This record gives sequence, C-alpha cells and structure tokens, in this order.
Amino acid sequence: MKNIDELAVFCKRKGFVYPTAEIYGGLSGFYDFGPYGVELKNSIKAEWWRTHVLQRADITGMDGSIITNPQVWEASGHISSFTDLLLDCKKCGNRLRADQFIEEKLGIKAEGQPVQGIKQIISEKRLKCPKCGSGFSEPKSFNLMFTTMVGPVGENSSIAYLRPETAQLMFACFKLVSENARLKLPFGIAQTGKAFRNEISPRDFLFRVREFEQMEIEYFIKPGQDCPFLGEVMNHTLNVLSREMQKKKQEPKKIKIKDLIAKEIMLSWHAYWLAFEQKWFTGLGAKKENFRVRQHLSEEKSHYASDTWDLEYNFPFGWKEILGVANRADFDLKQHMKNSGQDLAWFDQETGKKIIPHVIAEPSLGVERAFLVFMLEAYEYNKERDNIVLKLHPKLAPIKAAVFPLVSNKPELVNLAKKVYDDLKNEFSCFYDSAGSIGRRYARQDELGTPFCITIDFDSIKSNDATIRIRDSTKQERIKLSGLKQKIKEMIQ
Amino acid sequence: MKNIDELAVFCKRKGFVYPTAEIYGGLSGFYDFGPYGVELKNSIKAEWWRTHVLQRADITGMDGSIITNPQVWEASGHISSFTDLLLDCKKCGNRLRADQFIEEKLGIKAEGQPVQGIKQIISEKRLKCPKCGSGFSEPKSFNLMFTTMVGPVGENSSIAYLRPETAQLMFACFKLVSENARLKLPFGIAQTGKAFRNEISPRDFLFRVREFEQMEIEYFIKPGQDCPFLGEVMNHTLNVLSREMQKKKQEPKKIKIKDLIAKEIMLSWHAYWLAFEQKWFTGLGAKKENFRVRQHLSEEKSHYASDTWDLEYNFPFGWKEILGVANRADFDLKQHMKNSGQDLAWFDQETGKKIIPHVIAEPSLGVERAFLVFMLEAYEYNKERDNIVLKLHPKLAPIKAAVFPLVSNKPELVNLAKKVYDDLKNEFSCFYDSAGSIGRRYARQDELGTPFCITIDFDSIKSNDATIRIRDSTKQERIKLSGLKQKIKEMIQ
Repeated sequence: MKNIDELAVFCKRKGFVYPTAEIYGGLSGFYDFGPYGVELKNSIKAEWWRTHVLQRADITGMDGSIITNPQVWEASGHISSFTDLLLDCKKCGNRLRADQFIEEKLGIKAEGQPVQGIKQIISEKRLKCPKCGSGFSEPKSFNLMFTTMVGPVGENSSIAYLRPETAQLMFACFKLVSENARLKLPFGIAQTGKAFRNEISPRDFLFRVREFEQMEIEYFIKPGQDCPFLGEVMNHTLNVLSREMQKKKQEPKKIKIKDLIAKEIMLSWHAYWLAFEQKWFTGLGAKKENFRVRQHLSEEKSHYASDTWDLEYNFPFGWKEILGVANRADFDLKQHMKNSGQDLAWFDQETGKKIIPHVIAEPSLGVERAFLVFMLEAYEYNKERDNIVLKLHPKLAPIKAAVFPLVSNKPELVNLAKKVYDDLKNEFSCFYDSAGSIGRRYARQDELGTPFCITIDFDSIKSNDATIRIRDSTKQERIKLSGLKQKIKEMIQ
Repeated sequence: MKNIDELAVFCKRKGFVYPTAEIYGGLSGFYDFGPYGVELKNSIKAEWWRTHVLQRADITGMDGSIITNPQVWEASGHISSFTDLLLDCKKCGNRLRADQFIEEKLGIKAEGQPVQGIKQIISEKRLKCPKCGSGFSEPKSFNLMFTTMVGPVGENSSIAYLRPETAQLMFACFKLVSENARLKLPFGIAQTGKAFRNEISPRDFLFRVREFEQMEIEYFIKPGQDCPFLGEVMNHTLNVLSREMQKKKQEPKKIKIKDLIAKEIMLSWHAYWLAFEQKWFTGLGAKKENFRVRQHLSEEKSHYASDTWDLEYNFPFGWKEILGVANRADFDLKQHMKNSGQDLAWFDQETGKKIIPHVIAEPSLGVERAFLVFMLEAYEYNKERDNIVLKLHPKLAPIKAAVFPLVSNKPELVNLAKKVYDDLKNEFSCFYDSAGSIGRRYARQDELGTPFCITIDFDSIKSNDATIRIRDSTKQERIKLSGLKQKIKEMIQ
C-alpha cells in the first residue's frame, strides 16, 4: 500500500466506503458505508460485542443516547476542556490544528500542550503558515463538541451536545446499570455507538473523522485491586515504548507481560487489557508486528487520566493510536456525584462498606480505525492473479460464500445453483453470480474478500456435489452438497 | 397493561430503559438502554437485518452518515417542508403540536393539514388552551430537523442537519450502491441507524422520541412492474381499514391478500410488504389481532408520497403507526438528479434503455416502536407466580439461558455450574446466579424474559445432567450436559 488514498479509492470503487452524499461532493470528515462496508463494520461490531460482552461474565452492555442532558458534559469537563488549539494565519486566514501542525513540522508530540507551550514552540522554531508564509495570531481554544438546540425555537429550547464519547453515559448510568446487572467488582460496562467531534482538520481517510463509532468499556475496580485475569496473558508479548524510552529516543522493545509486571513498567490491568485487545486483532487476522504500545508523555495526558497507554498500529501514515487504555481513577464518578447530588457509591457486600470504584482501564476502540486496520491487513495485490485479493478473516468477510452456476444458459445448472444459494443464505451472507467467466467471477469475489466460492457444474447434477475454491490458496476441492453448509460454518470459525 | 407508564416503570426497574442521564433528571424525548434493553434492541436489529437483507437476494445494505451534505435535505424538501404546526397560547405561553392537540380533543386526524385547515378547525370548534382557557396565536411552522455547525467557528463553519430519516442517504447513494451490489430491478436498499426529530411534545414512552433508530428499505422497481413475490403471501390475511372505510366510519375488516389485489384495494407491492412485515412481527411472537393496516387519508399524505399504508398496532394509548409503506414514485431520485446535476438513471440491460426507477414501497420501521410492540406482547402478570413473566420470543430474549448451582456453598456444584455457564456463554448470552432460593432465581429470570433456566444439583455430578426449566410452561425436564448446548440452540430457533 503506497498510501492511504489508494485504500480510499479501492473502498469507493468496490462499495465499501464513499464520501458522504458523494453526488454533492461529500462533506469533510463524514463517510457513507456501501454494501460491503456495512457488512464488514457490522461483523467487527458483532465480534467485539461477542468477545467483550456476551462471552465475559464480568462485563455488561448498555446503549446511551447520543444527545443527553447537557449537565453530563458540564460534570465531565468537556464543556470547559474538550478543546483543541487553533492557529489562524494572520494574512490568508488558513486554519490549522496547532498540535498536528507542530507534530508534522517538527516530529514532536504536542497533543495536550497548553497555549503557552504552543506559543513558545511556534516562536522558538519560527513556524509560519505553510500556505503563504505569514505569521499566526494568538492560538485559540476551540471546543470540539457539536452543539444543537432541543425543543421548539425560542424560550423553551435549550442547548445540547452531540456526545463526543460514549464513556460519560456509562458513568451517568453507573448506578442503575451495575444494580440491574447485579455486578460485583471488578466489572466493566460496555457500549458501542456513534460519537461526534468537530475536528479542525479531518484527515487520513477514516482515521480522523467527525462522525465515528466507538466500542468502549469502562472497567471498575476496588481501589488497589489486582487483575485476576492476568494469568490468561502472562506469556504474551507486547512491543513496548514507555515514557522513558521515548525520552531517550529508543526503539520499542518486545517484552513479555510477566516482565512488564515484574519490572513495574505498567499496571497489571493495563497490561491485561493491552494484551487482550492486541490478541483480539491478531485473532481476527492482523499481524502482531504491526502493533506496539506507547505510554502517553506527561504533557499528552487528558484532563482526567493519570496514566494512559495507547495500542498503536503501523499505518501507511505512521504509528497511530487505535485504542487507548486510560486510568481515570474515580475522577468521573466523583464529578457526577458532585454535579448531580446523587450517591453513586457502590455497596461492597463483603465489607459492608460503600466505596467509589476506580476506573482502572478504559479500552476504547473506534470502529472506523478497526475497519482501517483490518482492510490494511487484508489488502494485497496478487501478482499472479493480477488482482487485489482482500484476505479478510472469514468471520469479518462481508460475503461468506459466493455460488456460481458454471454456465448461465442451462436451466438445470442454474436451478441447482439457486437452490444451493438459497439454502446457504439462510445461514450467512452469500452472493449469487452467473455473469462472465468463472475466472472473472473468482476475481470479483477476491476483491470483496469472499473466502469461499462454490461452483455448480454438470457433474453436480449427477453426483450432488460442487467445487469449493478457497480464496487465499486458490485450492479447489470437491464437496458433497449435503455437507456444504456445515463445512463452510466450520471454516468460518 | 393499564397504560404505557406501567411498562416504563418496569423497564427502568429491571434495566431495560432509563430516562437519559437519569441522575440529572433526564431530557425529554431521549432514553438510555440498560443491560437488558440493549440486548433486546440488538436482537431486534439483527433479526431485521437477517430477514430483510442477508436472507434476501433482492436487497442490499448500506450505512449512511448521520450528518451529511446539507444539499441532501434541500433536495429532499426537508428544509422547506419537514415541519409541524405549533400552537402558542396567547396568555400562558403553553405550546402544543396542532395536529396532536386536535386529534386528542376531537378524535379526527389532522396530520399534514395546512395552516388554513388548522385555523379553521380551531375557530369552528372553539378550541382553547387546555391549561388556561385562553386563545391561540396564529399557528406557526416549526422545522423538526436538529441543526448544528460543522467546522471551526466563524467564516469556515457551515450549517448541517442531524438526519431526520435514513431514507435520503439511500437515494443520495443510489447509483454507487446499486452498481457496487450489481442489483437488477426490482431491488431494495436497506439501512438501519439513528435519526433525530425535534418533536414538539415527545410522549408515550418510547413511541414518540427525539432520537430514535430506523430500519428502513427503499424498494425500487421499473415503473409499472408487478410484485413477483406476491405468491408467498397470497393466502395471508390483513385487518384492513381503507380510506373509504374511514370516511364511512366503518370498522376494519379481515381481508385475504388475494382479495385485496383482485378488488384493487391496494397495490401488489404494498400488500406484499404489509403482509411480509406483519408476518415478521407474528413470527417473533406478536399476536395477529393486535395489527391492522390503515390507508392514509388524502390530507395526511407526505409531500412525496402518492399512496401510503400504515401497519398499525393496538397500543395501550390507541391504534398507532409502527410502520409505513409509502409509494414515493420517482420523486426523490428526480429531486437529487436536479439538485446534484448527476445522472442517477439506471441502465436496463434487457432493453438497453436508461430509466428512473420508482420507489414503490418504503417499509420503514422504528426500532423503539418494535421494541415497545415486543415488550407489550411479552409483558404479563402471572397470578399463580405473582410475578411478571416476560414472554419474549427466545430469539429476542436478552438472556437465552441462566445457570444455577442448587446451593452456593458446595464447591463441586459451583464448579460444575460455572463450567456449564462458561461453555454456554461461548454460544449465546447467559447469566450465572447463585443468590437466593431457586424459586427466587426463576422469578428474577422470568421478569427478564429468560426462556431457559438450568439447575445443577447433586445428581448432576454423578450423572452429568441437569434440570432445564421452561419459562412459559414452568415444565422441568432432565437433560444430559453433553447435549445441553445443542438442545438450547434448537429451542431458540
């Protein structure tokens, strides 16, 4: 992959992702997902929910509203602090997000820097407008939340916000959810859903967009409680870039979880969640060497988090965050207790005491970023086939199986192929295709990532079998129609 | 069910639905879904997608952006016409939605009435403010779209809308989607996702809310093309209330689809989709007698639709729309062609001609309304058990199976129960419970709609079996642990 634009072009051409309302020229930072994109996205979300919620005894789900009572954002600090610094060119009016501009120009992290820090860097390094070469006015704070008005116009309407994250709904609903689900610490609350950020400069295709979907967990513990699941990942290895290593400009190092814990490089909970999430990606076909974990520098820290590690991915445009594991402690619950006047303490039946649980980890993943990772991992130009082969994990493939009659002008063949197709599509997403040569049909399915193609030929009618062709190896084998559905089901697992 | 408030109270108490950010007093028209609500909602959406998209060869999916290029809403007519009429009390400032107020006061449909019609009714019937008895000022038009600003503040930002329906994205993407999915007419494009309407008076729990989710299909045909699937529903019966019958104040009549077609009461496509959707509800456990289909009166018609039939449900607050089947013809595609300057015609390979397909039906269903229907159908006070039993279809039940050790202080029992639980939850949503008597545990699961409870007792250890108890009949039977997962899987179908 030369650059991310190549993927964007492919995604549009094959029906994965389009600029939103493309016939009107789109809208910067917003995308529509086409027939194959929506299936891939649905599969990513379903796999995440299955492995993070349904299969875990310690995590329950919820689904909060995108627009909620604005006091939530008052309490969380988003109204006062969810800002980026904006640079305005004095002459041409060009607008830039200060930290991004500095990072690109100088290769140093400037996220979370206060106005003074930004001003200093700009003056010391004599940074000028990249368009016209003039200077910038004073950096300005710009709140990233989209606002709207709720209620009929006039005195009855009131300001509200499109949520910039799903997390706060889990804090606001903490008491109701934890009581209803009868959870005991440690436990997590999970949520997937849209969030909105009025980014100053959306970029890198789906990487930095204004409307996106989160898959997020708030994981609560008794203060000081250790991670009981660490054993599951002890022998797993992470590619680690700690704060120290960044300061010394060292390369990331492969370190076993048990050594990370023994050397106190990270909290047991952080190590557990980073390994769990990396395994989630590799279990769905991503290559381990494309991941690393990086600790936030002190100046990058959010207003709420005392330690944050990002799981980063090796994108064509550099190593970038795909998932953050932040230690928020009791910041959010305390803020909401103060602002709502409600008691959100959790009653510990063992000790008979009330406690404010700590959020030790917040494994938060963007669906669009996961989408990019899986597409980048899968996308491959195959020289022999002179075609893109999308090697998506069968669990994620938008179409699980395609069914072809060898020729389209023999009713017996077509009828049998349609029968096979109808039967398979009761179980999973399928595609029927009778147009063009079999080779052309294979090529089309390779581009869509379809792992299995089934061809019904003249022998099929006599012997009730078909040829199944495997996407990655192009191997073909003969299979009885009676066992076809079960065989494909097994291969998807 | 006395009234809908009883259901709202139950939904909050058991963790299905809460007023959003309840600790701050909520926000009118917005709700958060708790641990069991999110599972029910996810099941409804997954069942809809499976039966309407994955299992159909003629329908493909997509997923458009909530915020899109505002020209979409210019073309669709939403900026100029997506309005409700607002009545302001001259004295106390009380605000009412005109058509709702008239319908409640006089029992006549006033949706879609122009200002003149509303003024006439108010003056003829001498309608006054229900709060203070004073008169109203001139009815005012109020656009229901939420607005926001995209881009950094100031001259670079521009107005945008939260989509009031998912439908328009399917028209805007019509060409890309139909080409990528290689569809042949007749075909449908399907989408699920959030939509937002700034309702003047949200009401009836989840029925009229400001943020909701749609499951929507735009179904395209060659002009005049008949429905080839009608055979599938020919012998099905609908409870019909046509325009004529409403004018004559007749009761709805049960009529077979084949008679509806023979008597030209409705279009073949409308009959097909209404029957298909009603069957979708009854296939998931709803009772047929709670549905009827009602034709829109001429004054109710939307600005785009030439004939619309609603599938209505018998709610505690009256018969109300849960699904609309509208004939939009080529209104939308033509509007978008005009406004975008793009050619959205479809190339008919058979005739070699380009045509503008007609949208003959738009089966559009709100997730929250479907949620209400399934909850109302399931909710039952059981006198014998002195408890609510939620008789949800197993496919929709938030928890498929609960696993109990008979007692919680015998490690052999607890370990075996946990092993059974761990095994089952790899397949579907499960709950482990060891607190209180078995009777109390059954009762708790009955309230959540869990169809199967499995108890591990002392005999289980010796004979590797367990008791499975069925929610609706309370029948219990002994079952081998080795066959348990398969048995439950079969019973969920």
